[in-house]
Amino acid sequence: MATRTAQPEESGEEGDISQRCRRFMCSPVTDVRVLQQNPGEMRTRMEMLIMETQAEFCRALEEVDGGTFQVDKWQRKEAGGGGISCVMQDGKVFEKAGVNVSVVSGYLTEEAAKQMRSRGKSLRGRDGKLPFCAMGVSSVIHPKNPHVPTVHFNYRYFEIEEEDGSKQWWFGGGTDLTPVYINPEDASLFHGTLKEACDRHHPRYYPDFKKWCDRYFYIRHRGETRGIGGIFFDDLDSPSQEEVFSFVKSCARTVVPCYLPIVRKHLNDPFTQEEKDWQQVRRGRYVEFNLVYDRGVKFGLATPGSRIESILMSLPLTARWEYMHEPAEGTPEAEMLAVLRNPEEWV
Amino acid sequence: MATRTAQPEESGEEGDISQRCRRFMCSPVTDVRVLQQNPGEMRTRMEMLIMETQAEFCRALEEVDGGTFQVDKWQRKEAGGGGISCVMQDGKVFEKAGVNVSVVSGYLTEEAAKQMRSRGKSLRGRDGKLPFCAMGVSSVIHPKNPHVPTVHFNYRYFEIEEEDGSKQWWFGGGTDLTPVYINPEDASLFHGTLKEACDRHHPRYYPDFKKWCDRYFYIRHRGETRGIGGIFFDDLDSPSQEEVFSFVKSCARTVVPCYLPIVRKHLNDPFTQEEKDWQQVRRGRYVEFNLVYDRGVKFGLATPGSRIESILMSLPLTARWEYMHEPAEGTPEAEMLAVLRNPEEWV
Repeated sequence: MATRTAQPEESGEEGDISQRCRRFMCSPVTDVRVLQQNPGEMRTRMEMLIMETQAEFCRALEEVDGGTFQVDKWQRKEAGGGGISCVMQDGKVFEKAGVNVSVVSGYLTEEAAKQMRSRGKSLRGRDGKLPFCAMGVSSVIHPKNPHVPTVHFNYRYFEIEEEDGSKQWWFGGGTDLTPVYINPEDASLFHGTLKEACDRHHPRYYPDFKKWCDRYFYIRHRGETRGIGGIFFDDLDSPSQEEVFSFVKSCARTVVPCYLPIVRKHLNDPFTQEEKDWQQVRRGRYVEFNLVYDRGVKFGLATPGSRIESILMSLPLTARWEYMHEPAEGTPEAEMLAVLRNPEEWV
Repeated sequence: MATRTAQPEESGEEGDISQRCRRFMCSPVTDVRVLQQNPGEMRTRMEMLIMETQAEFCRALEEVDGGTFQVDKWQRKEAGGGGISCVMQDGKVFEKAGVNVSVVSGYLTEEAAKQMRSRGKSLRGRDGKLPFCAMGVSSVIHPKNPHVPTVHFNYRYFEIEEEDGSKQWWFGGGTDLTPVYINPEDASLFHGTLKEACDRHHPRYYPDFKKWCDRYFYIRHRGETRGIGGIFFDDLDSPSQEEVFSFVKSCARTVVPCYLPIVRKHLNDPFTQEEKDWQQVRRGRYVEFNLVYDRGVKFGLATPGSRIESILMSLPLTARWEYMHEPAEGTPEAEMLAVLRNPEEWV
């Protein structure tokens, strides 16, 4: 049971809430006054973290691209909450970059609540209904240059109130990389940065969440992973809310150092039309994973009133499906495919 | 109950089986000697029809394109049957054209057999297992020119043997059109040709199967149909096997006259980059339908040992996802979208 609530004084978040909000891409989903009234609540602290992560990542991408994110603040129809979608399309470096925050609340049926927990715990609600709150930041970045990998991350928090007033909460998330060509140095930097963040919290986190990531981002019908993984976890509710939040904060803060050095290193790499075509074929596989297997996308598409454009902003601007495409032996394309068929250890 | 078997003399299929096979894209899936031994069986007659439909359509497309289909004959691993995939990629007129035949047999569990019938009839097998046979021809053609529409068709036959030796059988299929720009003349020709074929068999077929088609090819999360429809039916097992087969034969024979006149009319239409981009956005929606909703694709991807390349050959060579794409009012793109949001009557 995970009901110990976090103490504001342990939080380590600096500065006044309204001051911190000034650095965001726009005002938060929840009214600033509500956030100010409850600075110690996990809902507030997590919303501040996801807004900060969005802003920090968008600014870093804007700096390297020279372009500007389009910012759309939206509200859920006939339900509580909304989100902020930041998209940069057809930039100099990025073909499509999306960074989305959503904060949603309402009531779940007992069945729906059960399905939201990957371990399927049953929960008891008042008259079968459970007040819930879900929030997260998620992002997919598709660069133009085939030597710059695609990155995806998502960090999220759920809270459900049971009949007796007790709160169930958990965190989930992860960051993973999808290169078009394998570069062991990049792979080691990426995984190494994630491992460092994980190791500060628990020695099992990196090895366990690395495996979970390879298992989750698996395109079963192709027999290959979507990319070279990273970390993925869900349903994390121990040892304490404070400690899990602290871990999630560490993860969120690695997004820029994980990815931006790789972007800068390769953004001017020369490439051929063949390399661009292979990138497009890999983009097709990305679409296959996202539309066929991704739980978030499936849940979103099936939920009435969800904002389709924000769910599908993870799809690349362009993709390609070639019949019977199989790279010739000994080529860099075949080397990439071999890694996707047999995930490797990078640190 | 649909157990009256067809009489060979009623069939109307002309010529000797081995002679007819010479016109196919390659030898049929089932050994010609087996077909020759059972000329009156529906399995034989349907396999001949789907092979003929494949050949007739491929030749017509080759003639208009100038290119040649790649023909792949494949066998199912660890199971009975196989198929013949014909694909022409990056031709002069067609970006990707796929015409696939498959003939598959084996054993189904009672649960799987029930799921195969859209009305969910329960069937009793020997020790819970039911011998089945499924065959069909299916095709998707994606042209290069945005003024030439995409076409899809599929005609299929199922047979399941119950414990007492009685056979359950049914036919399914349809043909539908997905233009990038609406052209009422083309739409009328297409629907009119289908209606004519339907009307020869039953006055309710066209209106009922037209509605079914609009309902089936619906991209729920977008609130729009995939294209302007055509006909779609499933589970057809009355009034008699002979009459349903005769209807399916009429449908299969309309594929060329439905589509080729439209291709010839527009293949040299000039087009702009904006029109090409809109085509690519529509292709993205095609991918969304096929990966998220299409029953055949979902079933195929979930079935171990199925040939993924043949299932996914329906995906376009290229597609595009633009964030928040919405055509300006009064444009031809907006006109197309209006039709997809409110299906029209074309005949």
